[in-house]
Amino acid sequence: MQTADLLVFPRWLVTVEPSGTVLERHALVIRDGRIAQILPAAEARGIAATEVLELPRHAVMPGLVNLHTHSAMTLLRGIADDLPLMDWLQNHIWPAEGAHANRQFCVDGLRLACCEMIRGGTTAFNDMYFFPDASAQVAAESGMRATIGLIMIDFPTAWASGPDEYLHKGLEVHDSVRGNPLLRTVFAPHAPYTVSDKPLLEVRKYATELGTGIHMHVHETAGEVEMAVQAGGKRPWQRLKELELLGPDFIAVHMTQLSDQEIAEAAEFGVHVAHCPESNLKLASGFAPVGKLLAAGVNVGIGTDGAASNNDLDLLGELRTAALLAKAVSGDARTLAAPQALHMATLGGARALGIDGITGSLAPGKSADFIAVDLSAAATQPVYNVLSQLAYAAGRDQVTHSYVAGRALMRERQLLALDEAAILARAQEWREKIKP
Amino acid sequence: MQTADLLVFPRWLVTVEPSGTVLERHALVIRDGRIAQILPAAEARGIAATEVLELPRHAVMPGLVNLHTHSAMTLLRGIADDLPLMDWLQNHIWPAEGAHANRQFCVDGLRLACCEMIRGGTTAFNDMYFFPDASAQVAAESGMRATIGLIMIDFPTAWASGPDEYLHKGLEVHDSVRGNPLLRTVFAPHAPYTVSDKPLLEVRKYATELGTGIHMHVHETAGEVEMAVQAGGKRPWQRLKELELLGPDFIAVHMTQLSDQEIAEAAEFGVHVAHCPESNLKLASGFAPVGKLLAAGVNVGIGTDGAASNNDLDLLGELRTAALLAKAVSGDARTLAAPQALHMATLGGARALGIDGITGSLAPGKSADFIAVDLSAAATQPVYNVLSQLAYAAGRDQVTHSYVAGRALMRERQLLALDEAAILARAQEWREKIKP
Repeated sequence: MQTADLLVFPRWLVTVEPSGTVLERHALVIRDGRIAQILPAAEARGIAATEVLELPRHAVMPGLVNLHTHSAMTLLRGIADDLPLMDWLQNHIWPAEGAHANRQFCVDGLRLACCEMIRGGTTAFNDMYFFPDASAQVAAESGMRATIGLIMIDFPTAWASGPDEYLHKGLEVHDSVRGNPLLRTVFAPHAPYTVSDKPLLEVRKYATELGTGIHMHVHETAGEVEMAVQAGGKRPWQRLKELELLGPDFIAVHMTQLSDQEIAEAAEFGVHVAHCPESNLKLASGFAPVGKLLAAGVNVGIGTDGAASNNDLDLLGELRTAALLAKAVSGDARTLAAPQALHMATLGGARALGIDGITGSLAPGKSADFIAVDLSAAATQPVYNVLSQLAYAAGRDQVTHSYVAGRALMRERQLLALDEAAILARAQEWREKIKP
Repeated sequence: MQTADLLVFPRWLVTVEPSGTVLERHALVIRDGRIAQILPAAEARGIAATEVLELPRHAVMPGLVNLHTHSAMTLLRGIADDLPLMDWLQNHIWPAEGAHANRQFCVDGLRLACCEMIRGGTTAFNDMYFFPDASAQVAAESGMRATIGLIMIDFPTAWASGPDEYLHKGLEVHDSVRGNPLLRTVFAPHAPYTVSDKPLLEVRKYATELGTGIHMHVHETAGEVEMAVQAGGKRPWQRLKELELLGPDFIAVHMTQLSDQEIAEAAEFGVHVAHCPESNLKLASGFAPVGKLLAAGVNVGIGTDGAASNNDLDLLGELRTAALLAKAVSGDARTLAAPQALHMATLGGARALGIDGITGSLAPGKSADFIAVDLSAAATQPVYNVLSQLAYAAGRDQVTHSYVAGRALMRERQLLALDEAAILARAQEWREKIKP
């Protein structure tokens, strides 16, 4: 007789691949943290399982992949709003970080972020922040899948004194996570305007040597592109191209300012784009040309950015904003339809991180990284089209279960891996310390 | 000794007026359905009250005002997505309505909408749909405050055969709601492209005579403006101006296509704008110039539009989208700051409906229309700035209580006035009947 560790019987099974698939009366069969089979429910009922999860009002889908965040910034949520990017960064965020962003801040901030992300259906995230060693530690505690950005920036912070130390300490973090199958690293040079050529060339060398990727803010605002042109006679994209940073291991974040030629080059180089629509709107950075990027064949994933510029880590909300916005920006209501938006927030992100063989869709052999969304609330009834309901109507609060590699991180909205009460109490303490 | 029907002790009291006010250690004192006083909590503790509501983790704010919706369309949620406006209307929505939108559909659809709206913190809405008699009946059942649109459209529907009957039956609905202090009516000619001059002149005459307003879709898409120019040589706005429809009793919905002159005229005539950002994005209708409208002094409120084009009736989400979008559209991150966005979704809407003397802010003498939002969740911690948290981070699920005229419609997320289970069961039945 066949056995399984876990059988999942949802009302609807949204596999993401092939795009648009919705299976009814089917079950996930999970063994050793992986999806062993997807079977008709009747057939799966014959399997002896350690655990059976009945989800009669739920859609089960791949866990969401947050392709760009500065997780620990949850502790700065709402500290400064309604300001332009450079004012916000230079007069509010950087001073607050300078005063407070020590290792403990990063530990506590990321723990808070993990509570929020798990509750909202995110199972994997790509982080960029100081103290990546702290990020790796907390990510491991949380049970989430994470790619830890090895931050690089020209100026000194509490984490490192300059490019050499950023690189050196980053490499140590890279070595330290090797044993954890849920963790990876990526080089994370902050942005063209904060990292000079020499450290960027080092990053390229080590990224190629170690087979990790590069994760960088690129063309977030028109102002930053103009400044670069005035200072050095070329657009940042051109500079990155000349430094040979662009390639299929490169994740370009934001990309709101793009010529048609740059879009064609992004496709040609196989660069991935991390689209952060709510941050781009809130900071008035501009509109990423998502429709054109997709038409050119560029892989796009979705990120929330940090909670100080969004102000949440709600990827379901973010994919919805992405889907809505792409239509108005392209002038075509068919752009980024519901199945595509769901793909972008799962498999698109996974592909950008080089983990699409492991996660991002529900298929035999892949890791059992999935979430359940209860669609029985008034706000998501009636259900004619499950994918439309998930993309356009469901809220983060309707995510009831979250599993990574077959391990439950949340059941019936109860967090299992993290001590949420203690984490919230720590957030309160930080508030008292930080409040302006 | 002083007495009260209800005392409310929230952690934060967001009065909306004066803009930006957040009171701590204060209480609402409610008597006969009205806010009798706002007092320091210590003082209010001395009052004998029938009911005391302790809200130690909550912000209490005015109930949200949904300035434009087609409520009963909840029953068509997700039936057709990712399509341009005219294709969506002519090939999907109008045929479905033609086949199914009878009086019972409107009753059941609006009941579902009321469940969703109350759960999301909406206490007042401005409806435009067929069978306004059904809307009035259900609004009265629900305990919500409502303005019932007296629909007018050139072509026949199940509700009426043509302009004369729309007008006649509308006037009957107007008479029927007079005894209910929570209900009002507004004339609701659908759009310039669906209502001809003669009925519009009738609407203007009766609106003036009865002292009700006019609620109409105006300049939703560029295509509709172009079509009007080609057919009649003038933009719809110009035609409405010549028909003398524009005035301080006129609510113009959408308004994505506006010249600077039209914006100046909107201010001059005292026209109110119902901004529906998510619908405008989803149908690729365009971007309403909210920053310019506000700068010109135009009063703007926020609407969700119907659930078939959004796809929810979540006004908290909608005000957030409005706040985010206005910044990128104006190119200035200071546009529509959190306090302004909250004002727009409460007092701005109330003012457009002519009920800002009654609701839309928390002030002595006003009706006790308020909601509580629990900010203790990970996604809204820590709290540096309550207004920013409400506008940019809180979700509809965090609304725990809703009161209209001092009557509880929801307590601790339990709906009190409506039989939600029966309403959801009816929605399921409609789904079976309607599904394509």
